[in-house]
Amino acid sequence: MEPISLARGVPAPECLPLAELADCARAAILGDGDTVLSYGPGGGYPLLREWIAERHGVEPAQVILTNGSLQGFQFVAELLAPTGPVLVEAPTYDRPLKILASLGAEVIPVPLDEEGTVGSGAFLYTIPTFQNPTGRTLPFERRKRLAKLAKAGLLVFEDDPYGLVRFEGKALPTVFELAGGENVVYSSSFSKTIAPGLRVGYLVLPQALAAEVESAAASAYITPALLSQATVYAFLRRGKLAASLERVCGLLRERRDAMVTALERHLPEARWTVPEGGYFLWLELPADVLASELRPEGVTFVRGTDFFAGPGGEGALRLAFSYEAPAAIEEGVRRLASAVRAAMLLSRAA
Amino acid sequence: MEPISLARGVPAPECLPLAELADCARAAILGDGDTVLSYGPGGGYPLLREWIAERHGVEPAQVILTNGSLQGFQFVAELLAPTGPVLVEAPTYDRPLKILASLGAEVIPVPLDEEGTVGSGAFLYTIPTFQNPTGRTLPFERRKRLAKLAKAGLLVFEDDPYGLVRFEGKALPTVFELAGGENVVYSSSFSKTIAPGLRVGYLVLPQALAAEVESAAASAYITPALLSQATVYAFLRRGKLAASLERVCGLLRERRDAMVTALERHLPEARWTVPEGGYFLWLELPADVLASELRPEGVTFVRGTDFFAGPGGEGALRLAFSYEAPAAIEEGVRRLASAVRAAMLLSRAA
Repeated sequence: MEPISLARGVPAPECLPLAELADCARAAILGDGDTVLSYGPGGGYPLLREWIAERHGVEPAQVILTNGSLQGFQFVAELLAPTGPVLVEAPTYDRPLKILASLGAEVIPVPLDEEGTVGSGAFLYTIPTFQNPTGRTLPFERRKRLAKLAKAGLLVFEDDPYGLVRFEGKALPTVFELAGGENVVYSSSFSKTIAPGLRVGYLVLPQALAAEVESAAASAYITPALLSQATVYAFLRRGKLAASLERVCGLLRERRDAMVTALERHLPEARWTVPEGGYFLWLELPADVLASELRPEGVTFVRGTDFFAGPGGEGALRLAFSYEAPAAIEEGVRRLASAVRAAMLLSRAA
Repeated sequence: MEPISLARGVPAPECLPLAELADCARAAILGDGDTVLSYGPGGGYPLLREWIAERHGVEPAQVILTNGSLQGFQFVAELLAPTGPVLVEAPTYDRPLKILASLGAEVIPVPLDEEGTVGSGAFLYTIPTFQNPTGRTLPFERRKRLAKLAKAGLLVFEDDPYGLVRFEGKALPTVFELAGGENVVYSSSFSKTIAPGLRVGYLVLPQALAAEVESAAASAYITPALLSQATVYAFLRRGKLAASLERVCGLLRERRDAMVTALERHLPEARWTVPEGGYFLWLELPADVLASELRPEGVTFVRGTDFFAGPGGEGALRLAFSYEAPAAIEEGVRRLASAVRAAMLLSRAA
């Protein structure tokens, strides 16, 4: 049985603009090889920093390019976690949780749907749009509240890798925009919009913090991978982003639809989110079934518990619709449904 | 006055095989784009790992590619520094010293030319060939002693970025080779042999440590920059390394010769090393002149004190001959000599 991955938060190979990027890489070296092939600033390829700075209305020195955006999170966490607890959504992306754990940071989970007040701390980590793992998008009013918190002194780290990968509905302003950039770190990357293997992530930071992060980056690796960054820049300069996004969003919409249709058909006793973009949906299993009890065959997914710093998510799964083709998604959900059915029978027999 | 840099440990732009790399980058994506442009293993591009593994007679899983070799040092230091003191040469490369300081590691400097016994510790960091900053090469007998120490239980981290950049003389076996790979971490990169901006460094590690480092790398950035690694692989596969090395070594030999000749002419009262390869020579100023007293105009270099974890190097400088053309090197040394002369006069007047 060919295994089907509903675990991998990875774009399908057919999303990648291969021929165009091959030509962009060549052009990047031929056009600016002395810069691209030598050591450079810790904050990355200057022309791409300028492009991003213009897009976000900041100074180029406030933009730090990193080898993937996770590395940017790590630099910020290393600098700030010693100053106080880090507030995270519950659930949230598991990799930052692991980084915070390895730093020995104090982590305070904040339930995603809670309307209560958020405490103070070193910073708040949030993925407001098409969240990993839930696919949920923070509504406008909640975003305004976060912007207000930022202005009141709580640094907000807004991780936004999926924002441009929207299949439908209208984009909401980012927390960064609502706060006028004040006390917000905005993080994104070209992994979901161009190609993840290029490892081009970036941070937009307040001036003083940007200088600290650039210095930490230079200490860690002198200069990030300039060839990838110059390749991305060539791709953007040629105006290829819009068409790339259109193709990616088309492919992903089809896959999300295939997953939702399959869930309706095979697993109507579960509940799930229907995200307007991104890679993931969040599945809540029927009552009394725990993810740890499932014995799925030929299908993989990630257990909900992986996304909580504390307890939570025992009856939930993260399903990725980004990687497999629609027919495989349908079959994967069918296999998952069989495993859920089996667990329900066992649970009743017990 | 055009400033002349005898500070930058950077290859001259004319060393970079620009057109060939442009074509290799394109070929890397066209030939293996699905792998190059997607997420991959934390240890990097599989084909390049295999190539390096074969060269060093190890398993591919023992080779970890990093975004520049400094990042590899950081991973190893983070894992091992908590287990005991780190022994370093005095003087040694300043960036690892900074990383060790930021980790709060205990650092024990071991004088380079001392024949005494080396103590025990978490690991010993050494650059045996064309050392940064001194340009010195550890003789065969000392290498054998380090290999023996490794076999006796002291992990040796052998940093060898310059080994292939040899202008003359016969290559000595590496400590890694002498120890049969036992308890030695071998580190190198393609920064000096192909191009630094590609940021392709690597570690060759004992099996268990390799798995730990790969896991740390995946936690930090998921996957290193694959495009650069695949570009390097294409370059190697085409058999372009030998010709690249020949050109690089020719350019560097000429520059070293220009520097030594200029020192003989302008600064005969100083003493210096004459390295058979690499980027740097180590200059000892005339007695009673401190590097901190020099007021050079139009020339930069790095003070000797930067390369010591403790005291030392007050009367020494590191001069790089890698970056400037021979005529600029001659002029730079002339300017440096003027500053030394001025400091000598002041010191006698005082």
